[in-house]
Amino acid sequence: MYPRGVWRMNSLAWVIARASSGEYHPDCLRYEARAVRALRPGEVLLRTLYVSLDPTSRNWLKLDPRSTYLPLAVGDVMLGQTVAVVELSADQNFSRGDVVTALSGWETLSIVPAERVRRVSTDLPLETHLTIFSHIGLAATAGMLGVAAVRPGERVVVSAAAGATGSLAAQIAKGLGAHVVGIAGGPEKCRRLLEEYGLDAAIDYKAEDLDAALARHCPDGVDVFFDNVGGSVLDAVLMHLARGARIAVCGQIASYDGAPRRADNGVHNLMQLVFREARMQGFLAVLTPERTAEYHEVLLRLYRNGKLLARSHIIKGLERAPEALRLLFSGDHHGKLIVEVAKEPT
Amino acid sequence: MYPRGVWRMNSLAWVIARASSGEYHPDCLRYEARAVRALRPGEVLLRTLYVSLDPTSRNWLKLDPRSTYLPLAVGDVMLGQTVAVVELSADQNFSRGDVVTALSGWETLSIVPAERVRRVSTDLPLETHLTIFSHIGLAATAGMLGVAAVRPGERVVVSAAAGATGSLAAQIAKGLGAHVVGIAGGPEKCRRLLEEYGLDAAIDYKAEDLDAALARHCPDGVDVFFDNVGGSVLDAVLMHLARGARIAVCGQIASYDGAPRRADNGVHNLMQLVFREARMQGFLAVLTPERTAEYHEVLLRLYRNGKLLARSHIIKGLERAPEALRLLFSGDHHGKLIVEVAKEPT
Repeated sequence: MYPRGVWRMNSLAWVIARASSGEYHPDCLRYEARAVRALRPGEVLLRTLYVSLDPTSRNWLKLDPRSTYLPLAVGDVMLGQTVAVVELSADQNFSRGDVVTALSGWETLSIVPAERVRRVSTDLPLETHLTIFSHIGLAATAGMLGVAAVRPGERVVVSAAAGATGSLAAQIAKGLGAHVVGIAGGPEKCRRLLEEYGLDAAIDYKAEDLDAALARHCPDGVDVFFDNVGGSVLDAVLMHLARGARIAVCGQIASYDGAPRRADNGVHNLMQLVFREARMQGFLAVLTPERTAEYHEVLLRLYRNGKLLARSHIIKGLERAPEALRLLFSGDHHGKLIVEVAKEPT
Repeated sequence: MYPRGVWRMNSLAWVIARASSGEYHPDCLRYEARAVRALRPGEVLLRTLYVSLDPTSRNWLKLDPRSTYLPLAVGDVMLGQTVAVVELSADQNFSRGDVVTALSGWETLSIVPAERVRRVSTDLPLETHLTIFSHIGLAATAGMLGVAAVRPGERVVVSAAAGATGSLAAQIAKGLGAHVVGIAGGPEKCRRLLEEYGLDAAIDYKAEDLDAALARHCPDGVDVFFDNVGGSVLDAVLMHLARGARIAVCGQIASYDGAPRRADNGVHNLMQLVFREARMQGFLAVLTPERTAEYHEVLLRLYRNGKLLARSHIIKGLERAPEALRLLFSGDHHGKLIVEVAKEPT
């Protein structure tokens, strides 16, 4: 079960060199070879195929226990959601050759407790386990179903609607019969919202007055807001809430990157929560596993019916991961950012 | 039933002269005599004894339908919660001489639909119907019970804890067995929190570092936050939330008075709602009447057990009401602001 010599192998890993507060710079990570140790009971050794780059990646690098739900420290391997192949298993639920998704690391070989690993179907394109049937898809579903409980005919607004999570959240709401308005930056993203994702309306926040556009598209108010942005976008939507509105807070990217506190990136209209008796709730889908099976069913049904599209932006080579993370904040990516570490198994 | 001549009487009323945005100035109201019209079925004519001055009063004066749940317009009599005596009734549930509390007006005689009127016990001091057994007490109870569902042993933080609503909310949480930390400005208010209201700790935000004080008093995090302030106080508490925390948003006085948008009065830490899977909910107790009886029971039990104290700051004379409203925002009041319009009935 533990072939001789395997733990003498090296893993190539991105290790945290220092905390990164303020503007992100890739030199907070260093690339190094690390010896693979022997497995303990309940662990598996994974060979990484794909690593997902997410806003959470940025948060982990702050090393602030208050900025994430799973704090890291200097010297730790950088965490990430991956698709991988089981190389060795010391857990009864996994066998060599299983294709899995895991919360493991930015490294070529990774030892992970089995509870962070889930076997995936090889019938589906492997990258869909990071784009749709993933922490991203679970977040979108948990937000729309679990937190917002969206109902047919409701007016739903999604910020960062062309993004990895927002585009799924918007399509899920659409699939549930809601009237969905997406907010995105630029004509190309807005075209995609309407033509690819089939939303009812798109607002280009870079070109349009958000307040006027919301009044036009949601004259009776916004029932559900799925928010990944915060700041002035959240402030604008707060002014258009319908009575009893629900705001599912998935992220607040306006304040991720150590943004300095300015008048225009704070939120000033929270009193609207009182006037509209509205609820605003944060959630982490990875931490509510009891509904995972149900959410996967929803995602699979929509996907099989052709109602759930996801774009990927694939970067080849683990060595490029820290540099690629910059793209997430510059907006210069066209789909879910994924690093390809090794060729897919045949 | 409609004695001749009554509707030839005049009421003295504060009428809205103009919208008041930006800093409040009393000249947005004008004092005038208005003829009392005949009652329609389902209405009562009230003689006002006391009028309550509240943060909501400020919001109504903005005349912005998005700044309140019950919009007013130029020419309307200013709204307010009152204690009054029924002078005439065209509703079967009320009779002349009944002592009631009502959402009526800043006026000496007021015609109100019966559904906005509630009979009160004359066994209790009349002002308690504005301080405790009132919209204020209902808001405090609705926030602590209905929204936050506070449990014994939980860490509860209350902002503006020496204020009319905050002091009740804090005492209710205390009565339910929570560990309660109050935030207030100045040593006199903090002394009152500890000595009069019996809270476990008081933080003087004008003299102490709020972040350090919260870390000291709530080392395992804040389970419930009852917020009337918003802005930088909310931002500080957000950084200390326990997992699954609930924030009952009662008011956001930091952004009431047309405050200009500055870096230091916006809210920047909403991402903590995600990390801590926390919920933030606005509420208007007046609009959830189905639990009113239950909430009144809670208030009455605590009051009879001597566990619910309320201070009043009484201004004599309706003519002084607009000027007195200033005190609410300067903080130069020492208890619930109430205007005495007429002597109590004997």
